[in-house]
Amino acid sequence: MGKVIVVGIGPGSYEDMTIRADRALQSCDAIVGYGVYVDLVKERYPDKAFYETPMTQEAKRCALALDLARAGKTAAMVCSGDSGIYGMAALVYELRGESEEPEIEVVPGLTAACSAAALLGAPLTHDFAVISLSDRLTPWETIEKRLTHAAKADLTIALYNPASRSRPAHLKRACDILLRDLPDSRLCGIARNIGRAGESWRTLTLGELREAEVDMFCTVIVGNVSTKEIAGRLITPRGYKNV
Amino acid sequence: MGKVIVVGIGPGSYEDMTIRADRALQSCDAIVGYGVYVDLVKERYPDKAFYETPMTQEAKRCALALDLARAGKTAAMVCSGDSGIYGMAALVYELRGESEEPEIEVVPGLTAACSAAALLGAPLTHDFAVISLSDRLTPWETIEKRLTHAAKADLTIALYNPASRSRPAHLKRACDILLRDLPDSRLCGIARNIGRAGESWRTLTLGELREAEVDMFCTVIVGNVSTKEIAGRLITPRGYKNV
Repeated sequence: MGKVIVVGIGPGSYEDMTIRADRALQSCDAIVGYGVYVDLVKERYPDKAFYETPMTQEAKRCALALDLARAGKTAAMVCSGDSGIYGMAALVYELRGESEEPEIEVVPGLTAACSAAALLGAPLTHDFAVISLSDRLTPWETIEKRLTHAAKADLTIALYNPASRSRPAHLKRACDILLRDLPDSRLCGIARNIGRAGESWRTLTLGELREAEVDMFCTVIVGNVSTKEIAGRLITPRGYKNV
Repeated sequence: MGKVIVVGIGPGSYEDMTIRADRALQSCDAIVGYGVYVDLVKERYPDKAFYETPMTQEAKRCALALDLARAGKTAAMVCSGDSGIYGMAALVYELRGESEEPEIEVVPGLTAACSAAALLGAPLTHDFAVISLSDRLTPWETIEKRLTHAAKADLTIALYNPASRSRPAHLKRACDILLRDLPDSRLCGIARNIGRAGESWRTLTLGELREAEVDMFCTVIVGNVSTKEIAGRLITPRGYKNV
């Protein structure tokens, strides 16, 4: 019996992968994943067998990895960012059910909240929420409730999946919800293509964010009441005295 | 002029450090940090100059790193977990102020939410909040407000700094706040000494968590309404159909 290793490969660059993730990809027999993520690692591990499935076939992808493990292979299922946060780890466990076999190992990775924050400065120094704007699997009412409470709680907010071709106006809708409790001037940031070609970032206000162009390669951060700009970077102080 | 690299070293094991963090520690002249974190990396980078300051001297530590950079050195400031999340990145930016020199580079790392979740199973698959129970720099009223809204929002919650010697009852107080909105049976997990000697984890209910022994080496996760136990692991399904 082989095993499934669910590997968070981080934002996309080899350097931002953990040493454990790199070793897992070196030692496995097969690499399974969504095509875009498989493409990020293909060149560096050329001797592996690769299995790609489209975006909407997550369950099929996880079942394939489990089948490979049952056939004696070590199957690495690659996920962008962390392997758990909106990643495949839960689905692999769900599909295996109450059986203890094949073995599942979860290798965490840098989630976009961490890598986007590092690029923008240090906006997540204090308590924060991570909320996805994708309503493919979550009712919009749930997303709206979470955004509202996160704003009322003065949590810094990292928004994942701020837009896609089929949801072009989700970020605008989210900003309108946040603007019920937060001022137009609240500082925000957008990180794009983190760790990949075309990496970029900008800071802007929540009012400007409402009109901003974003796509599925963006992570958005909405600051808390203390967030400020220092030397062009987005910084949320933790509250150390005399600074 | 040198530079300051604020390096997130992850939970503590070399394997869970990113390749970029490892390279930064290899290439720097000096490693600066809180003693406990410096000790985690000292053996692997023995030719560096080490500077340690106690826990309450964060500003002094960051000023020291900036001074080393002004003297032409590359100073790596090590932070456990991520360098931004409750880490030193913001404070280094604050102390440098509006000057562009010395250069600051922020190298993100695995934050405890990611590494604890991977150890416990996959509890953070959906939207979540990260909240620290330390009231050293944050009024308890703010912490209480954030806990309350996170519970009402049905966010999974990662609790950092659940207890310390000077705050032995903070987790119990936090559970009492969460229990106003969440049931006693809500599934939770505790991860301890992640990536270090004595690593352990357990799942339990929110009612049991209220009575649990935790210390400053623990990270606590409180599940959302969908969180369940599968083969002993803590899993929050994302909502894929037909699983």
